[in-house]
Amino acid sequence: MKDIAIIAFDKFTDIDLFLMWDILGRNTTDWRVRILGPQPSLRSAHGLEVRPHGPLADASQADAVLFSSGKEGVPAALADPAFLAPLTLDPQRQAIGSICAGAFFLDRLGLLPGRQATTHPDARGVLQSLSIEPLDQPLVCHHRVATAGGCLAAVYLTGWLIETLFDADKRRATLLPVLPTGQREVYEALIDFSLRQARL
Amino acid sequence: MKDIAIIAFDKFTDIDLFLMWDILGRNTTDWRVRILGPQPSLRSAHGLEVRPHGPLADASQADAVLFSSGKEGVPAALADPAFLAPLTLDPQRQAIGSICAGAFFLDRLGLLPGRQATTHPDARGVLQSLSIEPLDQPLVCHHRVATAGGCLAAVYLTGWLIETLFDADKRRATLLPVLPTGQREVYEALIDFSLRQARL
Repeated sequence: MKDIAIIAFDKFTDIDLFLMWDILGRNTTDWRVRILGPQPSLRSAHGLEVRPHGPLADASQADAVLFSSGKEGVPAALADPAFLAPLTLDPQRQAIGSICAGAFFLDRLGLLPGRQATTHPDARGVLQSLSIEPLDQPLVCHHRVATAGGCLAAVYLTGWLIETLFDADKRRATLLPVLPTGQREVYEALIDFSLRQARL
Repeated sequence: MKDIAIIAFDKFTDIDLFLMWDILGRNTTDWRVRILGPQPSLRSAHGLEVRPHGPLADASQADAVLFSSGKEGVPAALADPAFLAPLTLDPQRQAIGSICAGAFFLDRLGLLPGRQATTHPDARGVLQSLSIEPLDQPLVCHHRVATAGGCLAAVYLTGWLIETLFDADKRRATLLPVLPTGQREVYEALIDFSLRQARL
């Protein structure tokens, strides 16, 4: 059984944690998904309290690590030298991804050597200030590292992850239950397109 | 300032609460959004604890009421005579909506006299068993009552709500921040199409 960790922190963007959490949480036989955080209780950007399932250090042993985002939460976490210290990640043995401003964690961890990524349109300028080229697409993948941008791109990021850990059939089965009624074909075409476009 | 209530209960589908919560929670000047529930602590289908902001009775005074969903949570709530009892809703003065199996609450409250609605594809048969025609589309609106189906259709439901309470410009501004990077046009076209299609 694969082990998937989602990294959270105070003032995380609600949807950027919960969308990945729910899409991945529906399968309980092929993988286990856990929210990891720096302390026993976190508060979302909109004020919901979440109690992580384990400490950040657990991510180092996970098969996959996904970073959530937060307009205020990411800068605050990056400003705290203790935040990333417990994380020893390795794209040779782990699939690693980010949504929106989560890309800045990947950069700090040295996981974006290709200097191309995506993020939320509002954070484009920050990527450029780090000498990373922001690509105007919802998902950018380089081997086993992916960045996603725009909250709903979590659908593509989780799809990429399941296809990377398993295969395209399991990716389709994972995403199908969240697609809008009567629009499955158009969303599946969008997902297929975005995953193909994503590969650098 | 408008008052928007999201109804939750034990074993709610995580995304069916949190997606509406986050999309609506980003605006703090035109409306206030609160999660209402039958007891001080709720547990999501995937095990997250949420503490509602108020009791269900508060929904009777809200300008808008949105019902979340839950494969196990909705039948359990409907089986409890005390659950819907505090709710006195009126589509003449309130906008009322549901995602997925939340449609069954609307039916129980007598809010679907047109006998047409949408829900999650997996719950289609339940609608039919209630003599409601399931329409194969993500959003169905009748005056100020809307049903949505398929988790991501929460984007359309919240869009419909803001356009109903305010106008199309505010609806676009509300949804823009969650759209995938590089795909704003295609999603805005999907949203426009779904809202037009929705009107019976």
